[in-house]
Amino acid sequence: MKVSRKHVFLGTFISSKSPQELEYLHDAAICVDDNGQIAKIDKECKTVELVQNVLLKTLEWTTDEVDIHVAKPGQFYFPGFIDSHVHAPQYPNAGIFGKSTLMDWLETYTFPLESSLKDLAKARRVYTACVRRSLAHGTTTSSYFATLDVAATNLLADLCLSLGQRAFVGRVCMDYHPMCPEYYRDESAQDGLDKTLQTIQHVRGIDPNFSLVSPILTPRFAPTCTTESLKGLASIQREMDLPVQTHVSENDGEIALVAQLFPESSSYTGVYDDCGLLTPRTILAHAVHLSEAEAKLIAQRGSKVSHCPCSNSSLTSGAARVRWMWDRGITVGLGTDMAGGYSPSILEAARQAALVSRHVAMGMKDGDPDRERTKLTVEEVLYLATRGGAAVVGLEGKVGGFEEGMEWDAQLIELASVDDEGGNVSGDGGNVDVFGWETWEERMAKWLYGGDDRNTKEVWVKGRLVHSRR
Amino acid sequence: MKVSRKHVFLGTFISSKSPQELEYLHDAAICVDDNGQIAKIDKECKTVELVQNVLLKTLEWTTDEVDIHVAKPGQFYFPGFIDSHVHAPQYPNAGIFGKSTLMDWLETYTFPLESSLKDLAKARRVYTACVRRSLAHGTTTSSYFATLDVAATNLLADLCLSLGQRAFVGRVCMDYHPMCPEYYRDESAQDGLDKTLQTIQHVRGIDPNFSLVSPILTPRFAPTCTTESLKGLASIQREMDLPVQTHVSENDGEIALVAQLFPESSSYTGVYDDCGLLTPRTILAHAVHLSEAEAKLIAQRGSKVSHCPCSNSSLTSGAARVRWMWDRGITVGLGTDMAGGYSPSILEAARQAALVSRHVAMGMKDGDPDRERTKLTVEEVLYLATRGGAAVVGLEGKVGGFEEGMEWDAQLIELASVDDEGGNVSGDGGNVDVFGWETWEERMAKWLYGGDDRNTKEVWVKGRLVHSRR
Repeated sequence: MKVSRKHVFLGTFISSKSPQELEYLHDAAICVDDNGQIAKIDKECKTVELVQNVLLKTLEWTTDEVDIHVAKPGQFYFPGFIDSHVHAPQYPNAGIFGKSTLMDWLETYTFPLESSLKDLAKARRVYTACVRRSLAHGTTTSSYFATLDVAATNLLADLCLSLGQRAFVGRVCMDYHPMCPEYYRDESAQDGLDKTLQTIQHVRGIDPNFSLVSPILTPRFAPTCTTESLKGLASIQREMDLPVQTHVSENDGEIALVAQLFPESSSYTGVYDDCGLLTPRTILAHAVHLSEAEAKLIAQRGSKVSHCPCSNSSLTSGAARVRWMWDRGITVGLGTDMAGGYSPSILEAARQAALVSRHVAMGMKDGDPDRERTKLTVEEVLYLATRGGAAVVGLEGKVGGFEEGMEWDAQLIELASVDDEGGNVSGDGGNVDVFGWETWEERMAKWLYGGDDRNTKEVWVKGRLVHSRR
Repeated sequence: MKVSRKHVFLGTFISSKSPQELEYLHDAAICVDDNGQIAKIDKECKTVELVQNVLLKTLEWTTDEVDIHVAKPGQFYFPGFIDSHVHAPQYPNAGIFGKSTLMDWLETYTFPLESSLKDLAKARRVYTACVRRSLAHGTTTSSYFATLDVAATNLLADLCLSLGQRAFVGRVCMDYHPMCPEYYRDESAQDGLDKTLQTIQHVRGIDPNFSLVSPILTPRFAPTCTTESLKGLASIQREMDLPVQTHVSENDGEIALVAQLFPESSSYTGVYDDCGLLTPRTILAHAVHLSEAEAKLIAQRGSKVSHCPCSNSSLTSGAARVRWMWDRGITVGLGTDMAGGYSPSILEAARQAALVSRHVAMGMKDGDPDRERTKLTVEEVLYLATRGGAAVVGLEGKVGGFEEGMEWDAQLIELASVDDEGGNVSGDGGNVDVFGWETWEERMAKWLYGGDDRNTKEVWVKGRLVHSRR
């Protein structure tokens, strides 16, 4: 998918160098070729004149094939966010969960809405609204659970491609009859596998190399799947080398149920491993209550975890231990988990990841040497939102940072400025008021804790402008 | 303070009937007189014609002295929010706290900024931005901590009056030398009391009956105050019947320090009681780690608690137990506690109160009969944000609800609508997408969990329009 133009971006670029450190490049230039790839990062090229007279010549690019974008003072480019776990069909239910917990929430709120999206007009309306909102919040890659319906799932893939969001789109498999409602389940394991193959074929038809949209194998979670279904999906995974997404260890009741349904497996994680689904390309959402043995198994297999703090707090599931998982060698990213989570924003997920890590710390004993370090910093949660997420969805080295050879998935951020009288210079530029004396580190903290989609002025995916705001 | 016009509002009005129940009045009319007081609520008057031909005649109001406001379908009026604990001078630090906890946060971030606001130009800039943001978020009443500086504190009172926010404005007292930094402390207890009296006199000068702005006695907290100072403030309290605000039992280290500094008192709460400051007009912020005895004492004295969930999570202070306090007869409202809290929004505080209550529940044992009811509902946190807060600041019966005789402190809320194609009908109307099939209860849940200041289209205080948005 060629984009028609080359681009040079001039200004401030901020991205994660490591979980502990953000790198600030000021007065720099990033050159993006017509494949959406970063061709060059120049730390010395500070002006449009230098771009035109020096930089373009080095690249052998001509002025007329390049658009030059100059960020205003105070604005900065940041890597696009990665939402490594989100249910597109549940978008209309964001915020609606009452006092439910996982299993009754599924029955009361989730299955009826998901099932209703076999109506393609409704699916188009919901999916369009969901993908647009997600892009507006700076999410350049999403790993979507769709529904059981093939046509609606294919439609979600079409919409991601046309709206320009990098996406993994999964047709949900759930075939274990006693657990799945009669009105919303696969007829058999084979029926689920066949339908999965239909969606894979569809995505291959619209994006043959999966360069923007990819299928993803999506057993809902162990309680709704027969071992036949899980093993069948594992076999497709091995054959086609596709990614996998599912849920693990979200809620105590669910864990007890899995132990009852799969007595021969050593643990919830063990169920997936026994069926061949614990691969380096597997995204496990939640992982709140992992045992040491499960954490070790996940790390050994190289599977990844999507941490969904908004959802875990909303549904009273628990508080996942990011530091604990990192210490055990597990790769972690963030998920909104709409509509278990109430927000389409990965910035909100990052904020809640920081707050939830403090609740984890507060639950630890005084004097526990790990208590203080359990708390996640601004830098660490922004890493989870970008590089962490990229690694979780298997796109590390391709998106999540600014490096030559990576693709230009980025957002332009602007914070509001307070004038001398205490008014707002920037009009309705969101809630983050910058007084002017703040360090860049402080501005990042203010953005994390007070920012929203109003601060995201432009969103780019693979060199294409997919969202902009006045 | 007369406002020049009478008003009739037509549309949907939603307010807390009790902590458990929101009352929905559809197609109703609320009449507000030129003192900003609700003169009549008419549940049958559904049209402008009926207002003009029937309602106004009943009230003996003429058409030309009345403005009639008709809410659009889907919009609703909600009582203005009450922020029962907020530090105006710390506004620029919202979101900036690193990994600090209470005591090092005060030293590192808070005292230097507060002290710098003796520069009145800076104070004007910061306070104007703070009050404006607070109003834009629908906060019609704030209980402000200012700084030690008399002139800057008086300026905050002036600004609240001119911008139209109902406010309690407290000049901060801190005179205990070893605990207060040399650059930011009262010279003596008497110095602090004298300066407090100066601010009281100033407020009396600008608003003689404290009808919009009131002084509030503000010992920072026990560790920064001598008993002489605390007792002196108690004596002013008795003499002038003024409200009091301070902090209690926020953080473990602080509690240990208080025990060490006040060995003769039975508890942290006991320190205030021993000095005569535990009155029915006293607002105690935080109250995270209260003992049973302290809760009993607070309930007996009729003192109130401002729950500040954003702050408590950010500073790793703990998770306050709202249900537990309610069960013990304590009146509770919400505080943003900027900049311990990262947001000026009471809607955000309400959202976090719901989430934090789930963390409290998750910390309880399985099978604990109180576990489930510990979780706060949408209705309960919206009650805390309005009626609860009104009771905490001593304005119950005056603001926080819609009743004849109460004052018109209200906000007009509008949620965004999704069109048939999945686009947004309302332009940049915030993040809450309404698809049209949601019940009113579901809309309230979506507003609580996804709403922001963009949904607050108008804000009224005492019958005066103090903020509007396109």
